[in-house]
Amino acid sequence: MRIRYVFALLVFLLAKRTSLGQNGIVVFQSDFGLKDGAVSAMKGVALGVSSELKLFDLTHEIPAYNIWEASYRLYQTVPYYPPGTVFVSVCDPGVGTERHSIVMMTNSGQYIVTPDNGTLTLVAEHMGIREVRQIDEAINRRKNSNESYTFHGRDVYAYTAARLAAHTIRFEQVGPKLPNEVVRLPYQKADVKNGVVKGNIPILDVQYGNVWSNIPKSIIDQLSLKPGDKVHVQIAQNGKFVYDKSVRWVHTFGEAPVGEDVAYINSLLNFSVAVNQGNFSEKHKVLSGPDWTIIISK
Amino acid sequence: MRIRYVFALLVFLLAKRTSLGQNGIVVFQSDFGLKDGAVSAMKGVALGVSSELKLFDLTHEIPAYNIWEASYRLYQTVPYYPPGTVFVSVCDPGVGTERHSIVMMTNSGQYIVTPDNGTLTLVAEHMGIREVRQIDEAINRRKNSNESYTFHGRDVYAYTAARLAAHTIRFEQVGPKLPNEVVRLPYQKADVKNGVVKGNIPILDVQYGNVWSNIPKSIIDQLSLKPGDKVHVQIAQNGKFVYDKSVRWVHTFGEAPVGEDVAYINSLLNFSVAVNQGNFSEKHKVLSGPDWTIIISK
Amino acid sequence: MRIRYVFALLVFLLAKRTSLGQNGIVVFQSDFGLKDGAVSAMKGVALGVSSELKLFDLTHEIPAYNIWEASYRLYQTVPYYPPGTVFVSVCDPGVGTERHSIVMMTNSGQYIVTPDNGTLTLVAEHMGIREVRQIDEAINRRKNSNESYTFHGRDVYAYTAARLAAHTIRFEQVGPKLPNEVVRLPYQKADVKNGVVKGNIPILDVQYGNVWSNIPKSIIDQLSLKPGDKVHVQIAQNGKFVYDKSVRWVHTFGEAPVGEDVAYINSLLNFSVAVNQGNFSEKHKVLSGPDWTIIISK
Repeated sequence: MRIRYVFALLVFLLAKRTSLGQNGIVVFQSDFGLKDGAVSAMKGVALGVSSELKLFDLTHEIPAYNIWEASYRLYQTVPYYPPGTVFVSVCDPGVGTERHSIVMMTNSGQYIVTPDNGTLTLVAEHMGIREVRQIDEAINRRKNSNESYTFHGRDVYAYTAARLAAHTIRFEQVGPKLPNEVVRLPYQKADVKNGVVKGNIPILDVQYGNVWSNIPKSIIDQLSLKPGDKVHVQIAQNGKFVYDKSVRWVHTFGEAPVGEDVAYINSLLNFSVAVNQGNFSEKHKVLSGPDWTIIISK
Repeated sequence: MRIRYVFALLVFLLAKRTSLGQNGIVVFQSDFGLKDGAVSAMKGVALGVSSELKLFDLTHEIPAYNIWEASYRLYQTVPYYPPGTVFVSVCDPGVGTERHSIVMMTNSGQYIVTPDNGTLTLVAEHMGIREVRQIDEAINRRKNSNESYTFHGRDVYAYTAARLAAHTIRFEQVGPKLPNEVVRLPYQKADVKNGVVKGNIPILDVQYGNVWSNIPKSIIDQLSLKPGDKVHVQIAQNGKFVYDKSVRWVHTFGEAPVGEDVAYINSLLNFSVAVNQGNFSEKHKVLSGPDWTIIISK
Repeated sequence: MRIRYVFALLVFLLAKRTSLGQNGIVVFQSDFGLKDGAVSAMKGVALGVSSELKLFDLTHEIPAYNIWEASYRLYQTVPYYPPGTVFVSVCDPGVGTERHSIVMMTNSGQYIVTPDNGTLTLVAEHMGIREVRQIDEAINRRKNSNESYTFHGRDVYAYTAARLAAHTIRFEQVGPKLPNEVVRLPYQKADVKNGVVKGNIPILDVQYGNVWSNIPKSIIDQLSLKPGDKVHVQIAQNGKFVYDKSVRWVHTFGEAPVGEDVAYINSLLNFSVAVNQGNFSEKHKVLSGPDWTIIISK
């Protein structure tokens, strides 16, 4: 008899651990910044669902309403988190309009809770979609929150993510299954023809001013570059060239003098240009977005 | 005999969980910024008390010495955290002067560890005071810290909060009970007379430049506004009008064209004005503080 | 029989707790900023090693490539964390060059994972070195990461720190033992002769613009200053004086009028100057670094 009781307790203890479901990890991204209490309130709501959840941040410095950058930051980080991690991304210029509130599961098992407004463009393309569900806001909404028209981030997205991560609800209980598709923002794909490589500048490495392209190492490999080689780089905005120069191809910045322009493969394994210990973006007035093109040849 | 030993172990395991007391959550706020090690040192001290504590941030971007904003950020977030959460707020222009170091317990069971300098103004008013205790710094101070004259945040506040959250001390052991009152900063209350609503602009939604008032939805409801209606908004600093315009009343920004001024109920359920996908504060040179008044009529 | 099974389970449960090794705490520092996904990707990699790890930040706002400031921030915080804590510091202008990747254990038991490029200067001097090991990157590198040339922070440093903190590897398994020395940046030591104290300005208190010296309280004590005394402060850059004034010696800012220059002992127990509720650095154009000297007399 007593043994059974002990077993029951053990099962309960183990179950409590396991019942955290997915893996109990929630990662937040937004364009809220960290100067006010909005991000912290989202975390408070999540901890109200379960104080055992482990809460982390991707970034909250997405420029206001910049869905493209939100999409890029997810692409940059989601693959590095273990399966079962639940992401919340709130960059939502169309809050209250017709866009759906959804949870997308990637092929490798991470979840992303977000308005379906293009935020999932790059993760869907690079990681694949296993399943998409629309959030049933009649059920998955913080209690006493129906009067609040604008803070979906806290009352629906953070709340639903926490309930999913804590196994309070199963994925199916998020809401009805949707077709395996999400809203995608159009952008220039990487391409190679006759030794000329074309691509887009999706993002800057903002901290250092390095310029990252969407051209993967696998395409660059076709140019058979060796450290020390020169590579011809042209950069244009809306077809107008703002940079045209041959630069040194390096494996590490240390191979070039301080202040010199270099081309390299970045941490995402894409072609990039930088100034060694300087700021390429500021020096050459190069920014990022769908209107920026980069052309590379040997 | 062995069974008893097993039980003892189980009780110990369960007790270890439960002994985290309150809920083991500590939330930090300060005007320290995140560029140096001050916030991280506070967390190190807390983890030295118990490595099982769960540590979070409200914000550390309170403008230096701005007690009013510290008070506002607490009001914006404390209610969303579960009872038993311990907040630490260090915005302390008068460090070393006569203000008390206290822990206030709200009516709903959250604790706030702070200098009693006005930081608790809005939380005390909106959440109510259950009990106030003065920190006995002879006991509740990090060991070997008596030579440090200026870092109360780390050596007294973070340390006491961690001990309280980890149940190393009970609330009574913080120090002597004080009367149920805190220092309160004076400010303009919301008011309605003959269909004219008056209030204050306590804060900006800094990330977007939206302007938030202290006028609750319950007062605005008396104007019986419908989406699409125009509402007359006047804003004055020290009695001098800087904005006077009829703007569209919306439930969501999506109802208005990009760039248009709109009035709406924000996530705190207060009357607010914004530019759809723009910055109202910058566009109209409107800031916040006790000297700013807002007047609304139909 | 059943009892044994119960015991085995208990041992397993307890072991799982204890197997977190050191203390399961990892603290990250870098010059990456928080605007992109680099810091979050490092944390994802760490959680992939063990989702039980407790992850914290020192700061990610180290100015790009500023090894000296990285060194200073570690000195400011490492001593406040419990023994067994694992720090990761990635400020690495020479990534890919000859500098070693190491883990240093302090005399008090904290670990720091970093390129050996001067980042450990101040921690090594003030806390002492118990042991240094070079990271064997053939073993301690995230799987499938060999193609990535530039992101050592994520693929080697965060990964190794997580494995060490989670007891996946013992300290010896980091790699071969090195001599008990690290690369040290040269800087001006504090000194006193005939009542004249000389020192360096290693850092600013950036949030408030206070100016911190490297002159410890123990040297200042020899001047026998009392609150209210005047102390003569000279500040020079490369030998050229930019500040020369007698200022009030205070224990707390509250002892001086708002806007007055004051001298005091800061939270690190070093001599410092500030403007009460103002910004000394901006007001008097004083910055920090090895080229800044401060001279104090009674």
